[in-house]
Amino acid sequence: MEYPEALERLVQDLRRLPGIGRKSAERAAFSVLEMDEEDVRTFAEDLVEARTQIHRCRVCGNITQDEVCAVCADPRRDHSVICVVRDVQDVLALEKTNEYRGTYHVLHGSISPMDGVGPDDLTINELLARLDGSVEEVILATSTDVAGQATATYLQSVLKPKDVTVTRIAYGVPVGTSLQFADEVTLAKALEGRRGVDA
Amino acid sequence: MEYPEALERLVQDLRRLPGIGRKSAERAAFSVLEMDEEDVRTFAEDLVEARTQIHRCRVCGNITQDEVCAVCADPRRDHSVICVVRDVQDVLALEKTNEYRGTYHVLHGSISPMDGVGPDDLTINELLARLDGSVEEVILATSTDVAGQATATYLQSVLKPKDVTVTRIAYGVPVGTSLQFADEVTLAKALEGRRGVDA
Repeated sequence: MEYPEALERLVQDLRRLPGIGRKSAERAAFSVLEMDEEDVRTFAEDLVEARTQIHRCRVCGNITQDEVCAVCADPRRDHSVICVVRDVQDVLALEKTNEYRGTYHVLHGSISPMDGVGPDDLTINELLARLDGSVEEVILATSTDVAGQATATYLQSVLKPKDVTVTRIAYGVPVGTSLQFADEVTLAKALEGRRGVDA
Repeated sequence: MEYPEALERLVQDLRRLPGIGRKSAERAAFSVLEMDEEDVRTFAEDLVEARTQIHRCRVCGNITQDEVCAVCADPRRDHSVICVVRDVQDVLALEKTNEYRGTYHVLHGSISPMDGVGPDDLTINELLARLDGSVEEVILATSTDVAGQATATYLQSVLKPKDVTVTRIAYGVPVGTSLQFADEVTLAKALEGRRGVDA
């Protein structure tokens, strides 16, 4: 017996979501059959609304339903500092700390020649356009993997001629874990980034 | 920063799917933002169509887009044998073996007084209604957990007065695994169900 056509189509749609294989997609599709029809209609509307109403902030590339995102529109944020991240999830992770009061710039990717992603595929020109004299510091918060490192190196080179301080976030042993659980590269970074302490 | 409202609603919808937690729902929602708008609209339509067009087969309770499911409508199937299962996924699992040529009856649950599920909440009356003299064998294929066993026991009692052979599928060591990986209950079932071999 084959799945009814309408169910098979839904399974295929669900499989396109990240981390959902054939089995999970089947379980999810069956659960949809058991849901209230009204809830399913709402789910369907929410899908289309999220896709059509959410777009990139004109300034920083973060997501928003307005022209400018909540961070860029907030006058209490420090607009002289820009933290450069790979994607929107990074913004959300940093916002959860409640520590950072500057703004962001979302690159929407990392430089990776192997994957055919070059500087022009990211929002680097938009970042440079923001450096109109009012920006004092650009914090590079791309990851430490090859692509993140390549991106940071490239950004450093294009930011060098600009009148702006460029910093990189600290990498080291995560707080709350034991040294023995940290990998060698992280430990090396932690040693390299050591700082003086008050005696 | 909060999620844009339209995104948060989609995350909540996705979380209602089985096996999807907050993190997976967020990842899935972000992937929807990156999808082609046309694909998202199709996904939304497929959700509603699956929910509205798929219903239970009038005869056996299996899912179908027609009045009667593909198995019940197939004249090449042996309609004198009914295999009773808990849910539709069990039908699909048995169909994948390509071994079974009879029909099915889907109970849509197991008897479980703790969860307030009694015989009347299952399709047992519909099963009894099918025993019109043309059915020769009812195979009980409910699982071996407490609820599945309780359901099998109940079915045995209501089927006893009927002029029909009642059988239970064999439980034992799964093919291809070593004895040492089988749990004790399975091993006990395997011993209990031993059969003579040709010397």
